[in-house]
Amino acid sequence: MSGVRARVADLARLLGGELLGDPGIEVQRIAPLEAADASSISFLSHPRYQAQLTTTLAACVIVGPAARDVAAARGAAIVCADPYLAFARLTQWWAAQTRRVPAAGVHASAVVEEGALIAASASIGPLACIARGARIGPGALIGSHASIGEDAEVGPGTRLAPHVSLGAACRIGARGIVHSGVVIGADGFGFAPDQGRWEKIEQLGAVHIGDDVEIGANTCIDRGALQDTVLEDGVKLDNLVQIGHNVRVGAHSAFAGCVGVAGSARIGRHCTAGGGAIILGHLEIVDHVHISAATLITRSIHKPGVYSGAFPFDDNAAWEKNAATLRQLHALRDRLRALERKN
Amino acid sequence: MSGVRARVADLARLLGGELLGDPGIEVQRIAPLEAADASSISFLSHPRYQAQLTTTLAACVIVGPAARDVAAARGAAIVCADPYLAFARLTQWWAAQTRRVPAAGVHASAVVEEGALIAASASIGPLACIARGARIGPGALIGSHASIGEDAEVGPGTRLAPHVSLGAACRIGARGIVHSGVVIGADGFGFAPDQGRWEKIEQLGAVHIGDDVEIGANTCIDRGALQDTVLEDGVKLDNLVQIGHNVRVGAHSAFAGCVGVAGSARIGRHCTAGGGAIILGHLEIVDHVHISAATLITRSIHKPGVYSGAFPFDDNAAWEKNAATLRQLHALRDRLRALERKN
Amino acid sequence: MSGVRARVADLARLLGGELLGDPGIEVQRIAPLEAADASSISFLSHPRYQAQLTTTLAACVIVGPAARDVAAARGAAIVCADPYLAFARLTQWWAAQTRRVPAAGVHASAVVEEGALIAASASIGPLACIARGARIGPGALIGSHASIGEDAEVGPGTRLAPHVSLGAACRIGARGIVHSGVVIGADGFGFAPDQGRWEKIEQLGAVHIGDDVEIGANTCIDRGALQDTVLEDGVKLDNLVQIGHNVRVGAHSAFAGCVGVAGSARIGRHCTAGGGAIILGHLEIVDHVHISAATLITRSIHKPGVYSGAFPFDDNAAWEKNAATLRQLHALRDRLRALERKN
Repeated sequence: MSGVRARVADLARLLGGELLGDPGIEVQRIAPLEAADASSISFLSHPRYQAQLTTTLAACVIVGPAARDVAAARGAAIVCADPYLAFARLTQWWAAQTRRVPAAGVHASAVVEEGALIAASASIGPLACIARGARIGPGALIGSHASIGEDAEVGPGTRLAPHVSLGAACRIGARGIVHSGVVIGADGFGFAPDQGRWEKIEQLGAVHIGDDVEIGANTCIDRGALQDTVLEDGVKLDNLVQIGHNVRVGAHSAFAGCVGVAGSARIGRHCTAGGGAIILGHLEIVDHVHISAATLITRSIHKPGVYSGAFPFDDNAAWEKNAATLRQLHALRDRLRALERKN
Repeated sequence: MSGVRARVADLARLLGGELLGDPGIEVQRIAPLEAADASSISFLSHPRYQAQLTTTLAACVIVGPAARDVAAARGAAIVCADPYLAFARLTQWWAAQTRRVPAAGVHASAVVEEGALIAASASIGPLACIARGARIGPGALIGSHASIGEDAEVGPGTRLAPHVSLGAACRIGARGIVHSGVVIGADGFGFAPDQGRWEKIEQLGAVHIGDDVEIGANTCIDRGALQDTVLEDGVKLDNLVQIGHNVRVGAHSAFAGCVGVAGSARIGRHCTAGGGAIILGHLEIVDHVHISAATLITRSIHKPGVYSGAFPFDDNAAWEKNAATLRQLHALRDRLRALERKN
Repeated sequence: MSGVRARVADLARLLGGELLGDPGIEVQRIAPLEAADASSISFLSHPRYQAQLTTTLAACVIVGPAARDVAAARGAAIVCADPYLAFARLTQWWAAQTRRVPAAGVHASAVVEEGALIAASASIGPLACIARGARIGPGALIGSHASIGEDAEVGPGTRLAPHVSLGAACRIGARGIVHSGVVIGADGFGFAPDQGRWEKIEQLGAVHIGDDVEIGANTCIDRGALQDTVLEDGVKLDNLVQIGHNVRVGAHSAFAGCVGVAGSARIGRHCTAGGGAIILGHLEIVDHVHISAATLITRSIHKPGVYSGAFPFDDNAAWEKNAATLRQLHALRDRLRALERKN
């Protein structure tokens, strides 16, 4: 974050907030309330942390209207309708000040097959490979060692980190971010049983990813068997997520790390899944469903809401006793019934 | 799938099925029943979907003997003993018509150390590295950015997608498919505790993979500590699977995405594991064991069958009440016993 | 392991153990007791396996003081205070005899930007990329296709396998081992909700990794939002582990494969987590906590100990009955209470 110096008056203008206190104060970094120093700007994202307002050393704090008076009492502040959103926008501005943008053009060490179409304003990193028929849009950044397959498409302004594989005929829209190690368009897992062996079903579909999608490191999105696997606009996937073939993830849904979605599941819009959740295949989940971490979804969900299913952890001795009893739970129910009949 | 035009009579011959209806009908794509149009060939894999036969727009449908009459009543059909298997073979034929096979030879940008043995009919993609002593068999395809370690072996006709790491002395047999980001032969996770620190146990074994094995994207197969980790013939692994050191996976077993198998587990033949299942180490599982998704296997399984162990999901409020009660389950059992003694 | 021939007297000296039997015996490989032959050295790591001492064909066996007499009765032996630790050291010596160390220097095919600082004794593998401002320490080994970002640092003697991504400004200390496909420094998963869309929080922190850390294949460690994600000295991570942004993992903690740790979790020293465990974010775990496989940790742990929470697996029919009953567990408790009141 080094090198940035910003006047709080300018930041207030940038964020569309009301400045309280000395407009000439300068800040040099963004920090959480408890780690902020006199050169930091910080933010109060939740009323829960309001007590930290009085102890933080931050030079300036972004707060919501409810915390206005407490903030004003301690020094400079920027009052915004949604301080967490303002913080997000501040990080974007900050990153734009400090990050070097690779120069447009194709690095001399990259391998570009004849018939690839690369926009003049795109940047192709060192040792990347672009196959014939691929199209790289204006302002797109292709990281080092990326592999872009035949007829694949990368939309305008989309950034691929190093070591991304985008398979043949797979497409990603505009303003996407794809982190290192992501594999888009590997074969879906499809086999027909044949006398104890598995006969491969060639995967003839592709992957179609909308605009404003972010995909975390080492995440995999398989190509469809006959049609495309689809991520709609605004989807956000964390690291090490598995999206099986023919899956459709609705717009603005977000999955945390280590989530797995099996083939042909159809997930609605504005859904979320916590870390390690597994969603089985050939089922449907409506919009606005929120799945807790480490939960296995085994059938369709037709009603918006929060769904959970993880074993509550305990110290090992207590867990062992409860887990052992759990294996007799059905028998316990029968014994309870028998008692009820007697009474 | 573009560019293919096929007469249904030719496809019936290819699949060894009986053609009903007009032999001259041409199809241009394969589609599921509900998405098929008048230029599609489709298939009925399960009697459950038979109702769709009467509504599909498909030009031709692959069916089993039981659906023969219903299929004949609606138009062209190919009757096969196993329509799903016929569909798999059709996808293979289709892929062969449409996919470009890389030219044999070593791409100018690849790095091949002296002492690597590469068959004349093999293809080494751009920016791949082949270390000394490695052997690449006839017809093998090594994708871009692949890294083949010293003395590693790739069997005839085996295809490695871009970004595969095959470690030193690791071997894969014939007709294998390895997807992007797969790491074969990283060190197994072995340490001896030494006064609160971990002393590394160097992993001196390798990985030995049989013929007709397919390995999904970003899956990891560790090298053995002293002997080899082994995948027998016909094993199929989905994406993001972890196979620990010294594991043996029996022939024709198949694991779905996000499965983890800990060190020295010994899995039988014709086993399956659903997504997110975890199999602990130093245990043995006999042939024909099927493990459900998200199930933790903590001890050996000596009998073929289906094994499960996931918490049933529910809406969050119901789950919270049940989970809280679960932590008192052992106490509940004791209270039930006490009541039984009284009655 | 080929090519090594070692006299047991020399190995006893190397390991600091007492030699029993003929000092001139030569061994050519290390093997488990049950797989050892007359050219093998083996070890007894646990009294549980002592029966194998009498049947093993090993030429020499490393044992603890308790097994001294039984071992002496069968032939050559090396008596060490901690035979498992001695075995670990033996594997290290063995690996040093057999593994080729890449030559120092930068491979001709690597891409090194101006302003990168590479120690003369470091080795940069083929087709690696080193960005400006990066520092590679003495004796460090950078594998093929590695991508080292701007201002990143690799400490002395640290080894990166092929296909590692070390992001901008991320640092790893001395003597580390990073396996293939590891992604260090991808963006943490941070978004502010904005009217049903996700606004990106740019991740302005980095990753800071201590000395003697080993990181398994395809594991991901995200950069912090504002401060650094930290792995302290001696941490060991297995394959396919996910470490979210702002996490701190205490010294000498070790996580098995497929573990996920969500953002801002703070894990103590000398902790362990079994395969597939998920640790939620914004919580604290004290030193010496051991988490069982497939366990979800949902809140802070303030006391050292072993914590578990996995559903006990069973044959599918039994599981189905128990799982169905589990969904009524709270109601069962109420019925039990009602009965207790009556009695």
